[in-house]
Amino acid sequence: MSEVLQQFKEHLKKMDAYSHAMGVLEYDSVTAMPHGGSTHLAETCGFLSGEMYKLMTDSAFKENIAYILSHKDEFDHITFREAEELHEDMERTEKIPMDEYIAYTVETNEASAVWHKAKAENDYASFEPYLDKIVEFNRRFASYWDPSRPKYDVLLDQYEKGLSKAALDVFFDGLRTELVPLIRQISEASQPEDGFAHEPVPIEKQRLLSDYLMQVMTIDREHCSIGETEHPFTTDFTKDDVRITTHYHETEMFSNVFSVIHEGGHALYELHTGDDLKGSPLGTGCSMGIHESQSRFYENIIGRSEAFISYIYPEVKRIAPKVFANVSAHDFYRAANVSRPSLIRTEADELTYPFHIMIRYDIEKELIEGDLKAKDVPALWNKLYKEYLGVDVPDDRSGALQDSHWSGGMIGYFPSYALGSAYGAQILAHMEKEIPVWEHVARGELAPIVAWLTEKIYRYGKLLTPQELIMNACGEPFDPSYYIAYLKEKYSKLYSL
Amino acid sequence: MSEVLQQFKEHLKKMDAYSHAMGVLEYDSVTAMPHGGSTHLAETCGFLSGEMYKLMTDSAFKENIAYILSHKDEFDHITFREAEELHEDMERTEKIPMDEYIAYTVETNEASAVWHKAKAENDYASFEPYLDKIVEFNRRFASYWDPSRPKYDVLLDQYEKGLSKAALDVFFDGLRTELVPLIRQISEASQPEDGFAHEPVPIEKQRLLSDYLMQVMTIDREHCSIGETEHPFTTDFTKDDVRITTHYHETEMFSNVFSVIHEGGHALYELHTGDDLKGSPLGTGCSMGIHESQSRFYENIIGRSEAFISYIYPEVKRIAPKVFANVSAHDFYRAANVSRPSLIRTEADELTYPFHIMIRYDIEKELIEGDLKAKDVPALWNKLYKEYLGVDVPDDRSGALQDSHWSGGMIGYFPSYALGSAYGAQILAHMEKEIPVWEHVARGELAPIVAWLTEKIYRYGKLLTPQELIMNACGEPFDPSYYIAYLKEKYSKLYSL
Repeated sequence: MSEVLQQFKEHLKKMDAYSHAMGVLEYDSVTAMPHGGSTHLAETCGFLSGEMYKLMTDSAFKENIAYILSHKDEFDHITFREAEELHEDMERTEKIPMDEYIAYTVETNEASAVWHKAKAENDYASFEPYLDKIVEFNRRFASYWDPSRPKYDVLLDQYEKGLSKAALDVFFDGLRTELVPLIRQISEASQPEDGFAHEPVPIEKQRLLSDYLMQVMTIDREHCSIGETEHPFTTDFTKDDVRITTHYHETEMFSNVFSVIHEGGHALYELHTGDDLKGSPLGTGCSMGIHESQSRFYENIIGRSEAFISYIYPEVKRIAPKVFANVSAHDFYRAANVSRPSLIRTEADELTYPFHIMIRYDIEKELIEGDLKAKDVPALWNKLYKEYLGVDVPDDRSGALQDSHWSGGMIGYFPSYALGSAYGAQILAHMEKEIPVWEHVARGELAPIVAWLTEKIYRYGKLLTPQELIMNACGEPFDPSYYIAYLKEKYSKLYSL
Repeated sequence: MSEVLQQFKEHLKKMDAYSHAMGVLEYDSVTAMPHGGSTHLAETCGFLSGEMYKLMTDSAFKENIAYILSHKDEFDHITFREAEELHEDMERTEKIPMDEYIAYTVETNEASAVWHKAKAENDYASFEPYLDKIVEFNRRFASYWDPSRPKYDVLLDQYEKGLSKAALDVFFDGLRTELVPLIRQISEASQPEDGFAHEPVPIEKQRLLSDYLMQVMTIDREHCSIGETEHPFTTDFTKDDVRITTHYHETEMFSNVFSVIHEGGHALYELHTGDDLKGSPLGTGCSMGIHESQSRFYENIIGRSEAFISYIYPEVKRIAPKVFANVSAHDFYRAANVSRPSLIRTEADELTYPFHIMIRYDIEKELIEGDLKAKDVPALWNKLYKEYLGVDVPDDRSGALQDSHWSGGMIGYFPSYALGSAYGAQILAHMEKEIPVWEHVARGELAPIVAWLTEKIYRYGKLLTPQELIMNACGEPFDPSYYIAYLKEKYSKLYSL
């Protein structure tokens, strides 16, 4: 028994080394690497993922996993859950022929670099062949993984286990029915003054603002850095090394502020996974939906609340005095919550945001289950933006090229964003019953909130499933009605409807 | 034969993947990683260097190398030189027991992180045990490599093959004899006004200045990025992915300017190695001394010349108009060449610079060949600074903790800096015979200079030895008298002596 355990844990360490190296290579590629490095990067990642594949499919390792799974009572709970998780990953990996697995890694690495350039140059045509190939890979992978189920459902499983097209159709239909009337009312209401949010703030000042927000969020900079990239994301290599990223535009101060708070939410989750899970494949966020519940909880529910904005207002005004000279805390709050249909998902307001997701969801379903080809994506994209949000897409840079996800192979990921918001609203309702959330926020005390979330969610890492975590935090299964109620209340009040 | 070649080249590709991954991990660790990541990084690097060691010492690989070396006429010249180079590296590696090799990698990774923190906190004591261990490793390695020669000579060999303590003693004695009188004269002469160089320039403006200097230097940003770190350095993963780094201090504008030009010199070398050496272990700079000859050629000989400074003056003034309001191009030139004994090597002027190297050289000799322990380094450091340069060292941050080299295990590296300056002066003298160097520089045309250096030096990568490259560029062996003549002429003129 102890030999099995030792071999198993040593094998995990090796896998962690490759995954750490590949993670840093990927992080580096979008924060520091000159574009010219992409071919060499693709070669190196291709080789390293080949080594990882060998480790994942090593026969002695598989025997050890099988032994652990069939001798549950001989092992601690964490080891057993590691074996379960790896068994599932391994099955997923083994069902893909090794040459296709390597080719896919090479493809997505190249595609990411091409996408970065294509977006900068508004050149969809250069990205198009990559998207077709990535879709083709994903369709093939879905049929390897489970030929009996709809391909898109199989892909969704990667990011939120148990999620289905059928459930998402119901979820989105509900949002559509309930929110469209509210959005209509708001589009007829008068809008607050938010011109100040587009006044220039030197990037050096915005960097100070990022530092300040990290501090308010209780994020320990010894374990979490801020990088800069085109499309902000968060990554972690252990709970001791978490990286958020942001982007700075002189005349889009809010863009950085809410990126930092959003990514900071992801970071808090990783920073507070249990110490007993350090170095374990379970020592990271449970699912994409749960992860997004945390980022969007901080970004929208906390970060865009009047309590939070009133608290940070004096410091923000100190850093950018000219911009805030004639702007009150309440003006700042109203401007941070303007609802106005727009083009860019990551800059969308909380209320219209799910419609950006719905558009991507509709397109992904057509790419995977229908006959849609990459060349027709921009036309469909633009049509849906007109239909759902009433906006005209002027170019692909602000349209089908805006997100990095597809270039990285992430198809089926987007729905987790909307799901995350809904989880977040439900979590808030239950947190409010146990701690005086808004009194804390008004005093800039985020620690009790972080502690509550650590206790209920963060510390479990991947030990529990999304459903178990929601049950653990809320004492009931997932229920999207909290989200709809939250949005209706917040926006009716904001626009005095 | 073709099977040997194929296996050999495939093995090189694998080695390149590990070395690429480890290189990016190291780059990331000093530009992006939060400090808390250092333990995990050390584990991953320990594992990856173990894999690298296995590849280096693989028996089939060794047989292939032996075959190539004994069948020279069956292989192209590059392959033969690769085999030669690897054979030498392999011998060096194999003489170190694997556990010591891994332990050393772990140690230096940890030591680098500790040093970064120790320097920031002026806490030599926390770094001290690491330095003792690193010295001990180096002493042991030197005796494994060649027990018959003085340990310090063996260590020098790593950075500049064929260099010896005896030769360096002669070299430094020459400089001392020839330059001390000049330094004395200058210390009695009146100094130009250089207060403007310490006026604040916002970091955002300094970043623009970096971009401008890269452009003047003809550096292609598609293949070379600028990172930020404590102690600037340059690294490359292929000629397609070169990274320079710099540091920004608001009131030390020159510090960034000359860091960028210095590191840009290293970058130009890597960017212009031959295409036929791409992906080859020979596709990088020949030696540390030759590399430093390029960085210091651009930084001092070109970058601090009146012709270059007059050329960049209008753009620098445009970027920092307040600072240069009452400063002429000639004032700028004089200020960039003030000679004044000081504390920090990387900020030292061209004339006193070699004395900073001499101090480190004296200490390294004592650590490796004598009885000096890490705990006594600061006292000796401070004593030598007083003796050679007449300056009092106020704290270890500005003293024995200032350089990163020892924390990374690089003992025997420093002398290559002084040697590089001497190579550079000799190269200039021969370049001037063939192209109108100063006419080009005055017009901001660096391309013909880069082209000359590419032809004579860069394109060869590691195909030639340092001695062969100097012979190739100058038509004569290394001769330090050019360096002494250059310094005497430049500084006598600057100070009207």
